[in-house]
Amino acid sequence: MITALAGGVGAARLLRGLVQVVPAAELTAIVNTADDMVYCGLYIAPDLDTVTRTLAGTFNEVKGYGVADDTWTVLTALGQLGGDTWFELGDQDLATHLFRSRRLDQGHPLSQVTAELAAAAGIAVRLLPVTDDPLRTRVRLQAGEEVSFQEYFAKLRHAVPVASIRFEGADVATPAPGVLDAVEQAELVIVCPSNPLLSIDPLLAVPGLRAQLASRRDRIVAVSPIVGGRAIKGPADRLLAELGFESSAAGVAAYYAPWVGTLVVDDVDAALAPRVEAAGLRCVVTDTMMTSPERSAALAAVVVDAGGLDARPLGRVN
Amino acid sequence: MITALAGGVGAARLLRGLVQVVPAAELTAIVNTADDMVYCGLYIAPDLDTVTRTLAGTFNEVKGYGVADDTWTVLTALGQLGGDTWFELGDQDLATHLFRSRRLDQGHPLSQVTAELAAAAGIAVRLLPVTDDPLRTRVRLQAGEEVSFQEYFAKLRHAVPVASIRFEGADVATPAPGVLDAVEQAELVIVCPSNPLLSIDPLLAVPGLRAQLASRRDRIVAVSPIVGGRAIKGPADRLLAELGFESSAAGVAAYYAPWVGTLVVDDVDAALAPRVEAAGLRCVVTDTMMTSPERSAALAAVVVDAGGLDARPLGRVN
Repeated sequence: MITALAGGVGAARLLRGLVQVVPAAELTAIVNTADDMVYCGLYIAPDLDTVTRTLAGTFNEVKGYGVADDTWTVLTALGQLGGDTWFELGDQDLATHLFRSRRLDQGHPLSQVTAELAAAAGIAVRLLPVTDDPLRTRVRLQAGEEVSFQEYFAKLRHAVPVASIRFEGADVATPAPGVLDAVEQAELVIVCPSNPLLSIDPLLAVPGLRAQLASRRDRIVAVSPIVGGRAIKGPADRLLAELGFESSAAGVAAYYAPWVGTLVVDDVDAALAPRVEAAGLRCVVTDTMMTSPERSAALAAVVVDAGGLDARPLGRVN
Repeated sequence: MITALAGGVGAARLLRGLVQVVPAAELTAIVNTADDMVYCGLYIAPDLDTVTRTLAGTFNEVKGYGVADDTWTVLTALGQLGGDTWFELGDQDLATHLFRSRRLDQGHPLSQVTAELAAAAGIAVRLLPVTDDPLRTRVRLQAGEEVSFQEYFAKLRHAVPVASIRFEGADVATPAPGVLDAVEQAELVIVCPSNPLLSIDPLLAVPGLRAQLASRRDRIVAVSPIVGGRAIKGPADRLLAELGFESSAAGVAAYYAPWVGTLVVDDVDAALAPRVEAAGLRCVVTDTMMTSPERSAALAAVVVDAGGLDARPLGRVN
């Protein structure tokens, strides 16, 4: 059994590789929910949707969110009414949000609704939201104001310096059913190349999870989301620097050192390997740019191997 | 100035007649909001939508709700996810709910959002929700249970006997801006042929409105929603009987007597005129079956005339 800690796009790309090299039914992904929000009354879970759709092959890779080949019937009508259309809700996308919102209204926990949506999408990977409880990223700007994740990310386009980040609700959240067991029982825990501060930290903030992970440190392999000093996507590089860490694979190693045993870094960062190891982590150097499903699978095979498990030969599908 | 008290379909049909016989800009409709609900997180206002769409010519007259010629892209996708599709949300319909929910989330009062949607629909009639505050019909069944309006109306198909009705939130609600003035300043107040117990009573339950109406009793003309002992639509006839009133135009007269001066009854109820008058109301007998825009206009002309105002010759449009 393999358990992955997952944010959005970077995690989804590694997961699409993992299902090519290990049986999907042996994979569990614990997914960040701190970016979730309510918009127009609808409960929207960006990371769960990104992972689900990527695994289902329906993710809109061009936009980086939403459903591929979606239609815009409702958004067009909303625009005709004079409504906000900056938040691009496609028709298929809306159906997901309506489904989830309705099931939550009926009292079903997010973990169950997530499983229903994964089943509807035909996904064999077990997807677990990190918690069924409300968890919300709050970003304190250096200018003083505290804003929501969406306001920081979408409205301000993460172009403003950040002073600190906290996860509202974390102190009273409990891990969703199966989360702690998935860490405890995994032969390998993979930290996907997601934003350490915005996607992985919220998982650690849920009581019990950080300690559980730290106890499995030598079974944990992370993939650096920082390549050549830059984030592949999003503001992880600037955030690391703003919060006092080095924006590099070595910085990621230092940040993860208390609970991660191995860090996979990109070929361009090979020279940083000694610094990663000086931080107390094993370092594995490989191509981490998952620009195609094939490259995702190749990276996944290296990660699985780094964890001491056998990857299936590439090219074979479950 | 004319002010109409309005529920859903019956009210909408009289309003589509009124705009043919008086200038739309001189009309205000105070609309019931006690049927409003949140579904999938979306704020849905059935009576406001019915009135708005009827006046805009986009109401789905066949179904009795929703938008004419709507499409079902999202509902189809929702069904494919395994979601509930009994609540038929068309694409155009959804756009309205998204617009309204978003604007309410942003802190705008329902009365402002209603005006925005009316303007987008090109409607000159001023539409006022009776209150910007939460107002929710609760129906106590004779079997003992208390259910929401939607559960009584849609799920139970109003086929169960009712013991009592109350309007949650009414005690702390205040009339929406313009509501009391619209009653005070009207030369004529029209009570549309809506359900007295489910559509008109909630208006009276908002503090201040019943007294304001009673003070204008001789300027108030109601159209009976009961014709030949039966409701044109919905459960008004059974509800009247279940709650101890006569299910007839005479029963409506008795129910409205404290605050309505004139009752318009259908030709088939001409024999009830003496009983209406014995209850202390003037009685006007005419054709009240608004099965076409023309018949709506003819009834509207009679109602306006009954209120002592001049109706425009039929056939002239503003």
